[in-house]
Amino acid sequence: MQKVNIEEKLSLFQDYWNPRIVGELNGQQVKLVKFKGEFVWHKHDLEEELFLVVSGQFKMEFRDKTVELKEGEFLIVPKGIEHRPVAEAEVSVMLFEPATTLNTGDEKGDLTKETLEKI
Amino acid sequence: MQKVNIEEKLSLFQDYWNPRIVGELNGQQVKLVKFKGEFVWHKHDLEEELFLVVSGQFKMEFRDKTVELKEGEFLIVPKGIEHRPVAEAEVSVMLFEPATTLNTGDEKGDLTKETLEKI
Repeated sequence: MQKVNIEEKLSLFQDYWNPRIVGELNGQQVKLVKFKGEFVWHKHDLEEELFLVVSGQFKMEFRDKTVELKEGEFLIVPKGIEHRPVAEAEVSVMLFEPATTLNTGDEKGDLTKETLEKI
Repeated sequence: MQKVNIEEKLSLFQDYWNPRIVGELNGQQVKLVKFKGEFVWHKHDLEEELFLVVSGQFKMEFRDKTVELKEGEFLIVPKGIEHRPVAEAEVSVMLFEPATTLNTGDEKGDLTKETLEKI
């Protein structure tokens, strides 16, 4: 049972769109990820996802609107809803979601990470 | 589907040991709470709890050790483990835990909050 320092964990990696697992509880995982650029449109049929901005800012695009998120703000994306994160500059994000969640949801491709590193 | 600004939500209440619900996903809840002073020793037989410090600092006491947590750090408390948060000065904390979690766990008393406000 050890505490996790978020900045310290973020300093351990630099690549984008590759979430690291930093905590697990009740079948859910806490992940840290850096975004830069545009991700792929996708949805999760079974899982809801929380995105909390640790530093920087990004936009979550939906088919009918866009939500801008900055440091200290979070958004919960319901299951079944298509979304795409877009970051003009690097942003660090904490995710809370079920352990079963695949980063690209129903859109498997080059950006899909089948297994995530625990740090 | 609306974003949540953590500081804004924290400005809506001032009392201690009274968590507010600010998000729900996958049967879990995101809560914000302010601590000051000593809470009661308790455990949760079924739920694991995540404590993330938003501002300030506090100590999580266990029967065999103490973990000091400051801004940007989190700790996951396993189920069945007795713990007691202690804060010398006011601290703001985000909780992530199952919707079934009672704040005082197995130790019902004056500090127990059977129902929580959603803000």
